[in-house]
Amino acid sequence: MPTPIDFYFDFSSPYAYLASERIDSIASRHGREVIWRPWLMGAAMKITGSAPLVDRPMINDYSRHDLERCARLAGLPLRLPDPFPFAAIASSRAVYLIEREEGPAAAKTLARALFHASFGLGRSIVEAERVAAITEAAIGSDPEDILAGIAEPAIKERLKEVTDGAIAGGVFGSPFFLVDGEAFWGHDRLEQVDLWLERGGW
Amino acid sequence: MPTPIDFYFDFSSPYAYLASERIDSIASRHGREVIWRPWLMGAAMKITGSAPLVDRPMINDYSRHDLERCARLAGLPLRLPDPFPFAAIASSRAVYLIEREEGPAAAKTLARALFHASFGLGRSIVEAERVAAITEAAIGSDPEDILAGIAEPAIKERLKEVTDGAIAGGVFGSPFFLVDGEAFWGHDRLEQVDLWLERGGW
Repeated sequence: MPTPIDFYFDFSSPYAYLASERIDSIASRHGREVIWRPWLMGAAMKITGSAPLVDRPMINDYSRHDLERCARLAGLPLRLPDPFPFAAIASSRAVYLIEREEGPAAAKTLARALFHASFGLGRSIVEAERVAAITEAAIGSDPEDILAGIAEPAIKERLKEVTDGAIAGGVFGSPFFLVDGEAFWGHDRLEQVDLWLERGGW
Repeated sequence: MPTPIDFYFDFSSPYAYLASERIDSIASRHGREVIWRPWLMGAAMKITGSAPLVDRPMINDYSRHDLERCARLAGLPLRLPDPFPFAAIASSRAVYLIEREEGPAAAKTLARALFHASFGLGRSIVEAERVAAITEAAIGSDPEDILAGIAEPAIKERLKEVTDGAIAGGVFGSPFFLVDGEAFWGHDRLEQVDLWLERGGW
């Protein structure tokens, strides 16, 4: 069984949303699975000295335009939610809760539903109640169970572990891919990920 | 005659070096010319709040690796000069001097020679004497004329005009391309530049 690809993302990253719509089909062409790993990028941004795009004059205007252009090219809907950027704590915890309770396929279904709500429809996924409602719609979970589960210490700890592990492994951006130990940062490295899988490196 | 593509770059940018080896062949497939416009990115970096890659923990290590991987994929030599990053004042002025004295084709030949010296061979192009020697080797100019020319107020003013005009036009990074008014930032947008030219937008 070939090693799965690690797909690290912060739910607040619209470029990760674009990548989330492509990474599994790229991987499957090469007989690979993808493990989706939501994490909280804020701690890494302090280390790298990165400011959110919205706080960067010129780059903010450009990136809005670039995002819309990339989305049109990919045929994907794009609406930025309000607030943006936002804290992806509840949404990330919900994915790890569902992974524990229902397995990785259900967790991925939920992650897709959260990305779609956030950047396809432009709706806030900050509030735990919204996350619970999306989880109910996507995989049928009881909203009360979701609200209780994402407040569990074990689930909080799981997200912290993934986040700490990401940074320890050199992950600092979103989206970020690890392919057989090789790091690729950004939606715009997906073509190289595809080639790397095809050629086994270069 | 279709509008030329504007290719803005800072000579200190290794991603611009990689792009410089591809942009003219992409443009010519679509019957377009490329105007090469060296500028000094430092002023824009202050506006956007961007630090040099070398000053950014994690991102610096990644970008060195990414640069080498991109260069290998493109079949291009890559050696970072010392110092790096560096002040591209003499090299940029020399290009505008040669553009005035010998025309745009000679200026482009010189710019290629400067990029090759800097990132193909890893040699410093900071010193005016080095720039003059590279100009002599590339297009046969007298080194004394180059040293005198790049100290001319008119040439200094020309570089300042291009730099100010770049920022006024929304240019903030390197490489940066303007295609019929559409802005593309980064070596990793060349595929989109190619598609934009093919389709006339999307």
